[in-house]
Amino acid sequence: MEKLKILGFAGSLRVSSYNRALLRATAELLPDDTTLEIFDLNGIPPFNQDLEMDMPAKVKEFKSKIKEADAILIATPEYNYSVPGVLKNAIDFASRPYGDNPFNNKPVAIMSASIGMLGGARAQYHLRQTFIFLNMYPMNGPEVMVNFAQNKFDSNGKLTDEDTKRYLKGLIENLANWTKRLRK
Amino acid sequence: MEKLKILGFAGSLRVSSYNRALLRATAELLPDDTTLEIFDLNGIPPFNQDLEMDMPAKVKEFKSKIKEADAILIATPEYNYSVPGVLKNAIDFASRPYGDNPFNNKPVAIMSASIGMLGGARAQYHLRQTFIFLNMYPMNGPEVMVNFAQNKFDSNGKLTDEDTKRYLKGLIENLANWTKRLRK
Amino acid sequence: MEKLKILGFAGSLRVSSYNRALLRATAELLPDDTTLEIFDLNGIPPFNQDLEMDMPAKVKEFKSKIKEADAILIATPEYNYSVPGVLKNAIDFASRPYGDNPFNNKPVAIMSASIGMLGGARAQYHLRQTFIFLNMYPMNGPEVMVNFAQNKFDSNGKLTDEDTKRYLKGLIENLANWTKRLRK
Amino acid sequence: MEKLKILGFAGSLRVSSYNRALLRATAELLPDDTTLEIFDLNGIPPFNQDLEMDMPAKVKEFKSKIKEADAILIATPEYNYSVPGVLKNAIDFASRPYGDNPFNNKPVAIMSASIGMLGGARAQYHLRQTFIFLNMYPMNGPEVMVNFAQNKFDSNGKLTDEDTKRYLKGLIENLANWTKRLRK
Repeated sequence: MEKLKILGFAGSLRVSSYNRALLRATAELLPDDTTLEIFDLNGIPPFNQDLEMDMPAKVKEFKSKIKEADAILIATPEYNYSVPGVLKNAIDFASRPYGDNPFNNKPVAIMSASIGMLGGARAQYHLRQTFIFLNMYPMNGPEVMVNFAQNKFDSNGKLTDEDTKRYLKGLIENLANWTKRLRK
Repeated sequence: MEKLKILGFAGSLRVSSYNRALLRATAELLPDDTTLEIFDLNGIPPFNQDLEMDMPAKVKEFKSKIKEADAILIATPEYNYSVPGVLKNAIDFASRPYGDNPFNNKPVAIMSASIGMLGGARAQYHLRQTFIFLNMYPMNGPEVMVNFAQNKFDSNGKLTDEDTKRYLKGLIENLANWTKRLRK
Repeated sequence: MEKLKILGFAGSLRVSSYNRALLRATAELLPDDTTLEIFDLNGIPPFNQDLEMDMPAKVKEFKSKIKEADAILIATPEYNYSVPGVLKNAIDFASRPYGDNPFNNKPVAIMSASIGMLGGARAQYHLRQTFIFLNMYPMNGPEVMVNFAQNKFDSNGKLTDEDTKRYLKGLIENLANWTKRLRK
Repeated sequence: MEKLKILGFAGSLRVSSYNRALLRATAELLPDDTTLEIFDLNGIPPFNQDLEMDMPAKVKEFKSKIKEADAILIATPEYNYSVPGVLKNAIDFASRPYGDNPFNNKPVAIMSASIGMLGGARAQYHLRQTFIFLNMYPMNGPEVMVNFAQNKFDSNGKLTDEDTKRYLKGLIENLANWTKRLRK
């Protein structure tokens, strides 16, 4: 029985990003029948349609990882009340050229962490609108929005908050179930 | 009497972008008491908070142009049902570091062009949510959403549609009035 | 083999509503293995939580129809750039009391008609956010947004536009397929 | 010197609504040069365009209060991740018939309270989209989103949380300043 392959990526390029840390924490909470590979968006240049037929190697690699995956897991902060430009740009670039959208038909889950009260909610709802065009299938819940993140990780970026661990575990289990349910 | 300085930029890096063309068309329709400078976002790298204290020259220039402007005019396509990553990334980068937000308190207008039916509407409403955090003041109307753009420009990227010209003229006049109204 | 039961309702109470007319047009384009029952929201009073334990008969009937349905089809206009209050109120009322949400786990499709250019798009995206909380499963496409509706129906409210008929047929077939796919 | 007239209304009909209580708390924190009148939406029937030329007395009264006001203050819960139907319906009804929109050109502020973590954020952002069409001018901040409201009011619906009082005071002072700024 082959394991479900989940591809994760974070919407922040910062080394000590709480959202990168969320992905690492999730990797330790996986159900037995799933794997999680984490892809680093660092190195994906700004998208310019004039250059899309000469795809950079990093974007080709990203696209190929997405295609191989059974499901996608995005961990993202919120920048200026919406999706970080770096995350949206990576998605935009990978979705091109027209007719070669690797996200098509993939189940997807979002999680977010922020130092503020709302935990990234505004980024999540905007991202969901993008999934409609990409023809992805977001789960309805659990919605993991980790607020006041500075209190929930230690200085090495290790998640210490037990409630948050439980939410992450619930999210990844649900993503596995959702992926199986959507297979015909 | 000093003229109102409007800074315009487009959310697409493509040379023949309809949205860049919208800005050029607007530059020919300005009221007497306004100027429009067009800034090219090409060259703004992906934002990484780890590097924000060592701001690239191109971003410094962008920030300084924004600060000098009395009002902002954004022309944007819609990518994947939301704001293009390249545009959002430029805004994210310019808004940093925390405490040095050049967009603060600026009036702003959006216009968009697309080859589809909705004319970029979905990008516009997401962008408006970002303006709340940046403390910008978007106009309510006119909402310029140029659909089926391929029929409204000639092969040199010159706007030929008279209705669209009228909308652009109304938009830029309103932006000038809105800017004056917001001055105490 | 039992037929799929789809429950449809319109977000306008107006007798000659284009959105009611869209539902009637869809009823004539059904795949063989589906039925469509149209429920009229007229008579659902404004929701007041103080009175929710004494549910009006009309709301009870609505809830019971939703529970029996395999999938939901909503035809809605756009009021003031969002979901009509009458539609949202009917959904709010039916979703109560807490713990008795009949929409839970139902596949859903939206269609909209308007006399303007955008065809109801803004109402559709807001409605999709509501589906997250209700735990409904909206299709990604086709997105049916009938603009300039006044040109697509005759004076008896009969759909005459062949393209729109094709979209409706595609939407209802997709809803049937989506419903089957989501069954475990 | 005439005082600024603010009209407030709550998006919940529940007698003990936290959002009604927010309005009452605000009434005790007014700047000297403003008045706040609270209007009760109870009694506004579901909008039906067929009947709009025969406007119910309650809606007429609501429209007339809006017209007399210098600014609007809305306190709203979040129902099903969006604006409560009863609130949206009251706005829809008051905005009709076409050409007689009493909200036109009015400054507006939103506040919200909820028993959950997000404090009504999702309702606020949807409401802001409605303001675009109505041509209202929402403030950018402060954004008052009172979460875990059950801990911030006593059993008589009196606001006891000092931080929340400070936010309300800041919001109403800003609304007064914003209203003056927008006057030509």
